[in-house]
Amino acid sequence: MSTRPTSMTAPGLPDSFDVVVVGGGVIGLSCAWRLTERGLGVALVDPDPGHGASWAAAGMLAPTTEASYGEESLLRLGLAGAARWPSYAAELAAASGCDPGLREQGTLVVAHDAGDKAELDRFADYGARLGLRLQSMSGQECRRLEPMLAPDVRGGLLAADSSAHNRLTVAALIAACEQSGVRMLATTVEQIETTGTAANLRVSGVRLADGQPLRSEHVVVAAGAWSPLLAGLPEDAVPAVRPVRGTVLRLMTPPDYRGAEVLTRTLRGTVAGAHVYLVPREDGEVVVGATMEEAGYDDRPTAGGVWELLRDARLLLPVISELTFVEAWSGLRPATPDNAPLVGPTTVAGLVMATGHGRNGILLAPVTADAVAAVVTEDVVPDALQAFSPLRFSHAQVPA
Amino acid sequence: MSTRPTSMTAPGLPDSFDVVVVGGGVIGLSCAWRLTERGLGVALVDPDPGHGASWAAAGMLAPTTEASYGEESLLRLGLAGAARWPSYAAELAAASGCDPGLREQGTLVVAHDAGDKAELDRFADYGARLGLRLQSMSGQECRRLEPMLAPDVRGGLLAADSSAHNRLTVAALIAACEQSGVRMLATTVEQIETTGTAANLRVSGVRLADGQPLRSEHVVVAAGAWSPLLAGLPEDAVPAVRPVRGTVLRLMTPPDYRGAEVLTRTLRGTVAGAHVYLVPREDGEVVVGATMEEAGYDDRPTAGGVWELLRDARLLLPVISELTFVEAWSGLRPATPDNAPLVGPTTVAGLVMATGHGRNGILLAPVTADAVAAVVTEDVVPDALQAFSPLRFSHAQVPA
Repeated sequence: MSTRPTSMTAPGLPDSFDVVVVGGGVIGLSCAWRLTERGLGVALVDPDPGHGASWAAAGMLAPTTEASYGEESLLRLGLAGAARWPSYAAELAAASGCDPGLREQGTLVVAHDAGDKAELDRFADYGARLGLRLQSMSGQECRRLEPMLAPDVRGGLLAADSSAHNRLTVAALIAACEQSGVRMLATTVEQIETTGTAANLRVSGVRLADGQPLRSEHVVVAAGAWSPLLAGLPEDAVPAVRPVRGTVLRLMTPPDYRGAEVLTRTLRGTVAGAHVYLVPREDGEVVVGATMEEAGYDDRPTAGGVWELLRDARLLLPVISELTFVEAWSGLRPATPDNAPLVGPTTVAGLVMATGHGRNGILLAPVTADAVAAVVTEDVVPDALQAFSPLRFSHAQVPA
Repeated sequence: MSTRPTSMTAPGLPDSFDVVVVGGGVIGLSCAWRLTERGLGVALVDPDPGHGASWAAAGMLAPTTEASYGEESLLRLGLAGAARWPSYAAELAAASGCDPGLREQGTLVVAHDAGDKAELDRFADYGARLGLRLQSMSGQECRRLEPMLAPDVRGGLLAADSSAHNRLTVAALIAACEQSGVRMLATTVEQIETTGTAANLRVSGVRLADGQPLRSEHVVVAAGAWSPLLAGLPEDAVPAVRPVRGTVLRLMTPPDYRGAEVLTRTLRGTVAGAHVYLVPREDGEVVVGATMEEAGYDDRPTAGGVWELLRDARLLLPVISELTFVEAWSGLRPATPDNAPLVGPTTVAGLVMATGHGRNGILLAPVTADAVAAVVTEDVVPDALQAFSPLRFSHAQVPA
């Protein structure tokens, strides 16, 4: 958060809240909204809510097609997150008056060359062993579903994975927070404040960039990739998070384009071993993503990243060449050593982590917010989140 | 100009000027500045000066390396334009306090494959017959000049062609216009007004978007690709101009990149027959251009255009992959049937054309402004511009 602009807090700000949420991405906003609905007084601190990784996301809700060998507990959490999304979207739309753009047309995963097809077949076998619902399709069947697909696509798998519009979701969450009484502070947290002895620390609040203290019994760290940079945490409470840059392209279908949709459902594929996805929106936008780059806190897209995305996406769906290039945008995912989030109590009493969601922040926002609300109000970690305690890395090295 | 925002003109605006310049790109701004320096009262009308084709340009001053078979009179004009630029840049910097970013490190033209090398050799022969100064270089000599060049570049030609920073040039021109007393009106011209009989028309001024008339003895049409859409012109005075979209990419060298410059001079090349150029700036920016697309008045970049530029530029200078992708930007060049500009008097007395500069607007702005000033103040067309009278197409069809 060190590079973000800092604005002064409003005069007349109370000096005490029940909970301070540090970070206003999709996770922090969801937590703040939920905590306020439970009757707590909540402040959310972010210089520019919703404009970090949440703004760069594509919004895939993709537990099935993101399933990876050895990450079965994350898969179960993702499936729970996806199952929670339809009711969450309805609650969010009702609370905010904004539609978060949930699309439930499914996801088609395709293979481009023979090596890609072999990888897809292995994935189908793996999915079958786990009981995932994946429907095998020939290349011809894929093109029947998506007529604009390249003629050389060799086959695919159809899954139920859906998508939400990440930027509409953020807008809806900001509106829901404001309407439910979350105090939004457009500044940064300078330091987490604690009391007690080293063996028995308790959070007492935060200090803002202008030096002003905010007292609170609970602090929720939802600062994404910036979470480990927060000052004031003892070493064993620093979250094991590092930034992994992702670049997406936003393309727009021109008005009256061939009288047809370019794409009706999320399309994922491997092209010569490289992964690419295309997520369509109701308004004709197609989001192409995403690179995975270890580049520290540099959140600028590179020419090479843009080129790779266009190269691979064109091979799956050649017509994207005719779409308007709106922007290339990068964000920093909060990645963890096991690719799973850090959610729950820490070694510091009252300090709750809600970070490390990596590629799955939008998907896991509803279940994370439910869990954080349960931790803060009932001191209970729900079953679904038991495996994702931040304590599993509490002796991890702080990232350089 | 129909899609641009319209703002109301200021109260207290005089209802009469010596000259009204329609369009505030590099051509219109240069003309207005020159005319004001000649002591005339000048109004310039543009809703957003400098943000059309001038904003999308790369700023190459490239008569030699743009020379084309059958366009020798345009080549002579371009050489005159390039020769005029150093003094023009100095005058502009003195008048405005802004440096237009002239770079005189030359231009290297290279070939990527055998076919490209054959084309380059033909171009070298053509240049030699015309007496152009082109120095042949082996691939190794090219890489000695530009160490980051791809190892498979087969050879090249070194030319004296320079470049200016198009956006700094525009900023300097706006400042020079304001400081010299040009009245800048941020609106559009609704109609050119004329008096007299069909056989003997004379311009009497313009009518602005809000209906306000501005009387003037002279009107200079410098509205680029929008020039033929101006209402009120008799058919034989409608300029034979059509829009040709060009997309450029703006890349930025990261701070302390390898401790080296990516590129020291303009690099042009053909890659499998496609033309691409890379123009370096003092601040580490590299501009990659440019597509040539017939797409009417649609000025949005396409994904395919961006992809082609990156594909070809990467093959000449692979390190651009590591540069920050700042933006893709498109503009509409005012193209003419013979690729040469339309500068000078028209069939309507007092109506002067300064449009149709195609790929050469920045290069030809100084000589065009000198010529327009001579036409308006002395009723004389300088020798250099004699061949570019708009009357040569005065019976051309209006573009659809």
